[in-house]
Amino acid sequence: MSTPFIDPTTLSPHEREHGSQLAPRFDSHGLITAITIEAGSNQVLMVAHMNAQALALTLETGQVHYWSRSRGKLWKKGESSGEIQHLVELRLDCDQDAVLVVVEQTGRGAACHTGKKSCFYRKVEMGPAGPHLVDAGVEQVFDPKDVYGG
Amino acid sequence: MSTPFIDPTTLSPHEREHGSQLAPRFDSHGLITAITIEAGSNQVLMVAHMNAQALALTLETGQVHYWSRSRGKLWKKGESSGEIQHLVELRLDCDQDAVLVVVEQTGRGAACHTGKKSCFYRKVEMGPAGPHLVDAGVEQVFDPKDVYGG
Repeated sequence: MSTPFIDPTTLSPHEREHGSQLAPRFDSHGLITAITIEAGSNQVLMVAHMNAQALALTLETGQVHYWSRSRGKLWKKGESSGEIQHLVELRLDCDQDAVLVVVEQTGRGAACHTGKKSCFYRKVEMGPAGPHLVDAGVEQVFDPKDVYGG
Repeated sequence: MSTPFIDPTTLSPHEREHGSQLAPRFDSHGLITAITIEAGSNQVLMVAHMNAQALALTLETGQVHYWSRSRGKLWKKGESSGEIQHLVELRLDCDQDAVLVVVEQTGRGAACHTGKKSCFYRKVEMGPAGPHLVDAGVEQVFDPKDVYGG
């Protein structure tokens, strides 16, 4: 498989920010930040990373792939849980060091391994003893014990 | 100023993912990824980083602060452009290594230094010559020459 991306160091800042050339700026670990949102609602589902292969596979297959930093391997989202993400649109930010992945979340509809629809299921509340986390009301879609065992 | 965050290494994975303790996992550079969205529409405006001081100041003042990696300094959003971000809600993800910053974007209403409302103003289109970027229809709020000079 080819990774048809342009070397960003060959572009000027203006070309990078205003041009039509896809030149993702992978970091020193070869990764780019990927923010994944649900098409239609714009709900942020998760944040993860892609390497060049994961980004190319996502564009070529229409199914979202990431690089798992904890497992050190390519990760097709949903390969064990069934929660496949179908790509609807992929956007680059101004300096091409982050991608916005717009998806239809299939399967049961949970992006998070906890079985929540979104990984962002807690919000900060300020209290007299300092900040703490409270439930933000994100839907619990499945029980992770039923999906991953445990 | 105190940075009232709990050391995440003192928590179990279960406590980190399901507890009420705010224990952000800053990376080896002392930074956490911050995804900033517009309250109401959920539109993703930008992706940046916070260090502990920026996160604490954001929570204490209600005005969003980041750490500028390019300038190597604390960055109060809007300090030069006037595009202040008022904090509406701050969420943590499951393993507390990313924050979702829900804001009201004040000033002219542009989060991006290009004068676009959002940094994600280009999308990938697949063509016979490979993928390339096209305009995604994000609103141009100001001319950067008028704001930053140039």
